[in-house]
Amino acid sequence: VEKIVEQGILYDFYGELLTPHQRGIYEDAVYGDLSLSEIAEKRGISRQGVYDLIRRCDRALAGYEEKLHLVARFLAVKQKVGELKQLAGLPGGGTPQTMAHIRQLAEEILEEL
Amino acid sequence: VEKIVEQGILYDFYGELLTPHQRGIYEDAVYGDLSLSEIAEKRGISRQGVYDLIRRCDRALAGYEEKLHLVARFLAVKQKVGELKQLAGLPGGGTPQTMAHIRQLAEEILEEL
Repeated sequence: VEKIVEQGILYDFYGELLTPHQRGIYEDAVYGDLSLSEIAEKRGISRQGVYDLIRRCDRALAGYEEKLHLVARFLAVKQKVGELKQLAGLPGGGTPQTMAHIRQLAEEILEEL
Repeated sequence: VEKIVEQGILYDFYGELLTPHQRGIYEDAVYGDLSLSEIAEKRGISRQGVYDLIRRCDRALAGYEEKLHLVARFLAVKQKVGELKQLAGLPGGGTPQTMAHIRQLAEEILEEL
């Protein structure tokens, strides 16, 4: 499951850099949840061909992240925004300490961007 | 100036997808602020060659953004985090309305991510 989630995030960010042919097969495998044999039959290529293509896509997507780190940057920002939202929803509301903490988190997020 | 700023942002995001050779020349032009003739002399290639390479890099970087839209997503998030930080710094501090507004902005940011 973790692998599928990670594939999904990388595909969400970098999938448009694959060819339409690669995207079609990759989506059948990762989102459509078809088996290699089902995809092979649907596309009229060998099961091995499907397997190789998916592996090549995985490597390409991982390679983009290795170079650009944009998924990592987004996830770091996402986590901090989540913390910030939680702070803003604390019962008792905005004490000066809470507000200072929110400003600090916002500042840290801006530095990531 | 605007063009250089935009070139800088695109390069910051996608520059690692260029070849080392392209990056070297592109950085001399955009960050090092060398003239085409100076770069040509330094690299031992023609002025026209430098010009073509830089144009090709510009097009490649713009093409990545056209496909991935990651600079646009980052800038949208950045603007909202800036608004949020400003809200958290208002004199009078965290009224329930301000806190609700902060939570809403955080929610909108999470949807962009």
